[in-house]
Amino acid sequence: MRIEDKLSARTQFMHANVTREILKVVGQPGMISLAGGIPAPESFPIDIIRDLTNEVLDEFGPAALQYDQTEGFTPLRMALMDYMPTRGVVNVNLDTLNIFSGSQSTLDLISKVLITPGDTIAIEAPSYLGAISAFNAYQPTYVSIATDENGMIPEALEETLKTQTIKFIYLVPTFQNPTGRTLSLERRKRVAELLQQYDVLLVEDDPYSALRYSGEALPPIQQFAPDHVIYSSTFSKILSPGLRLGFCVAPAPLARWLAIAKQGSDLHTQTLGQAIAALYLRGGYLTDHLPNIIALYRPRLESMLNALANYMPEGFTWSHPEGGMFLWLAGPEGLDTDVLYQECVARGVAFVPGRYFYYDYSQGLNTMRLNFTMVSPAVVDKAVKILAETAQDTLITD
Amino acid sequence: MRIEDKLSARTQFMHANVTREILKVVGQPGMISLAGGIPAPESFPIDIIRDLTNEVLDEFGPAALQYDQTEGFTPLRMALMDYMPTRGVVNVNLDTLNIFSGSQSTLDLISKVLITPGDTIAIEAPSYLGAISAFNAYQPTYVSIATDENGMIPEALEETLKTQTIKFIYLVPTFQNPTGRTLSLERRKRVAELLQQYDVLLVEDDPYSALRYSGEALPPIQQFAPDHVIYSSTFSKILSPGLRLGFCVAPAPLARWLAIAKQGSDLHTQTLGQAIAALYLRGGYLTDHLPNIIALYRPRLESMLNALANYMPEGFTWSHPEGGMFLWLAGPEGLDTDVLYQECVARGVAFVPGRYFYYDYSQGLNTMRLNFTMVSPAVVDKAVKILAETAQDTLITD
Repeated sequence: MRIEDKLSARTQFMHANVTREILKVVGQPGMISLAGGIPAPESFPIDIIRDLTNEVLDEFGPAALQYDQTEGFTPLRMALMDYMPTRGVVNVNLDTLNIFSGSQSTLDLISKVLITPGDTIAIEAPSYLGAISAFNAYQPTYVSIATDENGMIPEALEETLKTQTIKFIYLVPTFQNPTGRTLSLERRKRVAELLQQYDVLLVEDDPYSALRYSGEALPPIQQFAPDHVIYSSTFSKILSPGLRLGFCVAPAPLARWLAIAKQGSDLHTQTLGQAIAALYLRGGYLTDHLPNIIALYRPRLESMLNALANYMPEGFTWSHPEGGMFLWLAGPEGLDTDVLYQECVARGVAFVPGRYFYYDYSQGLNTMRLNFTMVSPAVVDKAVKILAETAQDTLITD
Repeated sequence: MRIEDKLSARTQFMHANVTREILKVVGQPGMISLAGGIPAPESFPIDIIRDLTNEVLDEFGPAALQYDQTEGFTPLRMALMDYMPTRGVVNVNLDTLNIFSGSQSTLDLISKVLITPGDTIAIEAPSYLGAISAFNAYQPTYVSIATDENGMIPEALEETLKTQTIKFIYLVPTFQNPTGRTLSLERRKRVAELLQQYDVLLVEDDPYSALRYSGEALPPIQQFAPDHVIYSSTFSKILSPGLRLGFCVAPAPLARWLAIAKQGSDLHTQTLGQAIAALYLRGGYLTDHLPNIIALYRPRLESMLNALANYMPEGFTWSHPEGGMFLWLAGPEGLDTDVLYQECVARGVAFVPGRYFYYDYSQGLNTMRLNFTMVSPAVVDKAVKILAETAQDTLITD
């Protein structure tokens, strides 16, 4: 049988995540990886999870192992109704809140419910790859909105909204992946106004805002336009990514459609992990443990910012995130970071060339994403030094 | 904002599962439910899961909580490569085997990769509702293949294959939901021949075959035509449905596409549960525990078959399954089991009227699905007696 002859039309729009190829390189012995996008394993509260699993089986018994409601395990939804308002999210109730199988599944279901092939989605450039991967299967077209160091530029967004019909806007407004950039408060308010004025939906993807190492917390855009925003977050960065637990607040009629779509997609999210997360919130373990995660990552970011200032040759600029997991580096025009990547790997340091965060790989040829959560401050320093030296050599060769 | 104006075209084809409404009734105090489709909570090996969670955290540490491969947690895939051949599945290797987030997610991803809107899927009538719910989002059309007490009739299937282009056939060949029927060995071999002759794919959904209470095990159709069969099974009935763990063997090029689609849909299936399932298989716990599940369900099925023989009025026939969770009951022509359902609920017994297992609700008006896994043999007897009396009264009233 030729499987190729049997595939759906949409598979033309689906392709393997290119960063997965890069991440294979990371596994080589001795390689220092600034390429990954994953939490440090030492950030996981293993002993808490062990204890909570026992508590879950004591308290919920077989209900923790049984089929459950599509909308989510009720004790987890109740705990999130307490927690999410502390993060500035409004309108969190049983009609608006769904649990999904990780943010990736949230994005898949949003796409399933909203995208008709040919619909246009407005995204930042560069943007989060996993989101584009979710959207692609539903055959949208894209329009990029210009961004600067404060995130998406509202004037550029308005220009697009004036001239095109946009199904939804997709933004990671806080500590964005890949740039680490954060949308300013003023811009958040302006984006919210535009959503209302042009009656357009925003998917606000917020995996990182709890990982703030300095500066003041900012409210989600959802707070300023709850009827026009689908707010998505996850336990991946504050508990464990392997549990695959996302949570999402959407306008009630849309939340209902997301649940209907989820019935067909995966029926419900695994119960045991939801129950663990419920007790993690309810028992105050997140409040206790989050400072440990921050204390782990803050010096890694500081080390990276110091090393960049100390070592990078002239012509390089980079973002100065106050949290999250990533930093964005741009070299002089003409630098090809794919070439630099090959040279760096040969010297034992991996990163992700920036072009792969643009949906058509044609932009950002001189940029790269650096992750700082996976290695110690000393190793961060060493890696950036090697990167800087390699960049210097590459520029001279050019 | 009017959400209705923003929805994708495919939402027209998606609707809430009607049995969910029926299952709400089941929650009423004193109601005996033959309506559900879920395992008995006392079938879950809670203490084993508690111990295995500790073992998992000892053996795998943070890897059990970290992002993992889309194709599945390697120790679980290795364990399944040992286990699945004992169930007659062939060609189980790392190129063909994927772990998905429950069978529902397997069916969703198969649909995503194979169905272009308008493609035709051949299904049994009646068929598993959850499958139709997964398929609907991708806008197929359906053709029903006639079935009898031995499952889908190969001659009817061939007639369809001769005259129509079929994207895939969907079958639950063993202890089918909703009928409890099993496709005979001879028919399995004939279906396999037809798959090869007409070069068409079969989705063989096999959640129940391990739950055999009498008779001889039958090989999966996949054994006779591995290049044309996508074999799907699950831990839901042999460990815990709440863990949402499905596994699937497909021809290698298709398995690769399913993994690419899964990257966009949910990235990977939760790691902790996969690790628990890996140790459940590897440590021989399934072999130890499965007889307990069978010992729990066998007398419930026997009680139901005895009670039906003892109490049902003339004109009723029913399937005689040798395993699984369901039995299918047909009344005389003209009986409306929706009406019977209302009467039975008033007397404290719930079931699911058969029409809801047909994709257009127009057939099976005189049929119903009875589940026997959720109540003790004595309660099964009592419930069938009430059902029989109510049926008698309903027929007289007519």
